[in-house]
Amino acid sequence: MQEFIYYAPTKVYFGKGKQREVGEIIKGYGYKKIMLQYGKGSIKKSGLYDEIMASLTASGIEVVEMGGVEPNPKITFVREAVKLAKEEKVEMILAVGGGSVIDSCKYTAAGAASDCNPWDFPTRKSTVTEALPVGCVLTLAAAGSEMSSSAVITNLELNMKRGFNSDFNRCKFAICNPELTYTVDKYQTACGVVDIMAHTMERYFTVCDPTDLTDRIAESLLKSVVDAGKVLMENPCDYEARATVMWASSLSHNDLTGCGRENALAVHQLEHALSGEFDHIAHGAGLAVLFPAWGRYVYRYNIPRFAQFARRVWEVTEADDEKAAVLGIERMAEYFASLGMPVRLRDFGIEGDCMDKLADLCTFGKQRSVKSYVDMDYDVIKAIFESCY
Amino acid sequence: MQEFIYYAPTKVYFGKGKQREVGEIIKGYGYKKIMLQYGKGSIKKSGLYDEIMASLTASGIEVVEMGGVEPNPKITFVREAVKLAKEEKVEMILAVGGGSVIDSCKYTAAGAASDCNPWDFPTRKSTVTEALPVGCVLTLAAAGSEMSSSAVITNLELNMKRGFNSDFNRCKFAICNPELTYTVDKYQTACGVVDIMAHTMERYFTVCDPTDLTDRIAESLLKSVVDAGKVLMENPCDYEARATVMWASSLSHNDLTGCGRENALAVHQLEHALSGEFDHIAHGAGLAVLFPAWGRYVYRYNIPRFAQFARRVWEVTEADDEKAAVLGIERMAEYFASLGMPVRLRDFGIEGDCMDKLADLCTFGKQRSVKSYVDMDYDVIKAIFESCY
Repeated sequence: MQEFIYYAPTKVYFGKGKQREVGEIIKGYGYKKIMLQYGKGSIKKSGLYDEIMASLTASGIEVVEMGGVEPNPKITFVREAVKLAKEEKVEMILAVGGGSVIDSCKYTAAGAASDCNPWDFPTRKSTVTEALPVGCVLTLAAAGSEMSSSAVITNLELNMKRGFNSDFNRCKFAICNPELTYTVDKYQTACGVVDIMAHTMERYFTVCDPTDLTDRIAESLLKSVVDAGKVLMENPCDYEARATVMWASSLSHNDLTGCGRENALAVHQLEHALSGEFDHIAHGAGLAVLFPAWGRYVYRYNIPRFAQFARRVWEVTEADDEKAAVLGIERMAEYFASLGMPVRLRDFGIEGDCMDKLADLCTFGKQRSVKSYVDMDYDVIKAIFESCY
Repeated sequence: MQEFIYYAPTKVYFGKGKQREVGEIIKGYGYKKIMLQYGKGSIKKSGLYDEIMASLTASGIEVVEMGGVEPNPKITFVREAVKLAKEEKVEMILAVGGGSVIDSCKYTAAGAASDCNPWDFPTRKSTVTEALPVGCVLTLAAAGSEMSSSAVITNLELNMKRGFNSDFNRCKFAICNPELTYTVDKYQTACGVVDIMAHTMERYFTVCDPTDLTDRIAESLLKSVVDAGKVLMENPCDYEARATVMWASSLSHNDLTGCGRENALAVHQLEHALSGEFDHIAHGAGLAVLFPAWGRYVYRYNIPRFAQFARRVWEVTEADDEKAAVLGIERMAEYFASLGMPVRLRDFGIEGDCMDKLADLCTFGKQRSVKSYVDMDYDVIKAIFESCY
């Protein structure tokens, strides 16, 4: 077990109807004026917006609104939000939505407490040393941003999707009511399941010595999510399955599943290039194609690890390690396909001549390689992209 | 999954040599004058005291010392510590030790920020509304107090051991170096393993609907600890096993293993009466006798639950649920015995005429019963104690 720091201070309020406590919770922290961010308006149709506003109003919280956060949130939106947050002197930022809205709020919170260009945070030109507090009402179980230290943003001018990690990115509180995800459609539900699994698998497949406790926790989470995902394809309003996926979303990315291990997110690097270049690709769907492709390429560099994954998560009984390893990757691929996820890059309707561009984006123009069981340089990354076209 | 609040804000610094960062960590929070509590002096023999003092001195931290915390820490000691903490106006309390020292610090921290008698907290006469921050350098993996919301104290005048839960009992930071537990003897190591398992099993065996994710996490933790405990009986300096047990200690009692479930600690109620009445009994050793006895009495009221426990944790393959349930309890009992734990109450050298007294203590003089799969009133509790004499 490698040394680690574990710090997951987000207070999670989990259960039915919890969104109606948002005003009381914020009042409890002493904040009186907040910025509310949300997406394209689905929370207005569902009635959630009205519930949130009623709760905030009843607690005497003044609200500055910034609706319209897009999926793969944009730095241009953040710049406007920062300007408004400063002008209005809001004391905290409330996200009502999924990972995109929460990440937009995290950038806004850091930007509002600094004089930097918020794009300087993911490009490492500036470090966050202060941020407004962020809270969220979660409506999508996927990104795990509600408890994570990470925040990802897209810069369309530069065709770049970048993230950074900081304890200032940890939400102060997260309100998680699984019922709020009943209306998430099958495709987005599946994308969420893949993203949650990916956050755990990324940490599971890193270059380090075995870690029995963390391994078993990760395997447990994967098994539970696999089962719950199956249930949700049949019955999207199964509370227990929605609850499992939602809580797993938080645990998958709050660092619990990586304690004592390296914490590289290798496949995410590839996917961020993909959905950064092609804005219509959902992050989870990109991962569903890339994770098996990555596994097929790298498994031979750590067969025992992939064999353990196959046996403990996918109940592969094959005695030969290499055969088991391969079977585990194929079971994973079949599972993603069974959720209705795309299987190959061409399923996204993209042309086959983008591989150089994607490899270039991943390596920041051949400036770096991505660490995995084999060093993933430009050529390796290009080969992985090509293998799943 | 029942509704829950999850809040585990303790920052954990885990790994070799981390105790030497204690001064820097405390300085980072801005505290300049602290109270240091520790036990009977083993940290002086081991050299840990000198390391801690060197680190604190190098960071310019002023230290007020209160050594001499006893196992099953005493309210009389806390009263003295509170007095001194107030006189000296210390800003935080640092525990160097195991659960007893940490719990003593928690009571001191709450007492120092209030005008109440600290015994009023566990007896519910007063509620903690403020407390000094507590940090710890952990030297014993057992109680999980380094991340838990609970604190237990003994009042020898009243022959009572009582606890209470509060978010003010959460440590601000915990420094966890598994190497510091190399010198813990076999008996205390075994007591720790049992206590850690008990914290998870208490939450696992509560009256509520199934919770797949939390169940699997709990089962994972139990399996890892069982394996690591075996290793430590052979090789007390196995870093990986010590690390597994230490991290499991924190996760077992920070509420992770109970999310979405009832959180009663039924067997702990019995054990607190036992080691409250007989001060020489180690908490973990008491649990090692009482947990199987409790299981044998109550399993018939929830056979599927005990069968799942048997199959997933103890790899029982018996197809019949009731037989599997019984086998699981016996495997657990055999495991505790294999660690050198006492098997019956008489092994503690106590007389057999104390059962009425113990049942009386558990039920606060027949004033309450303890909730479990069967309501545990005076008679049931007495029967359980008698069954394992």
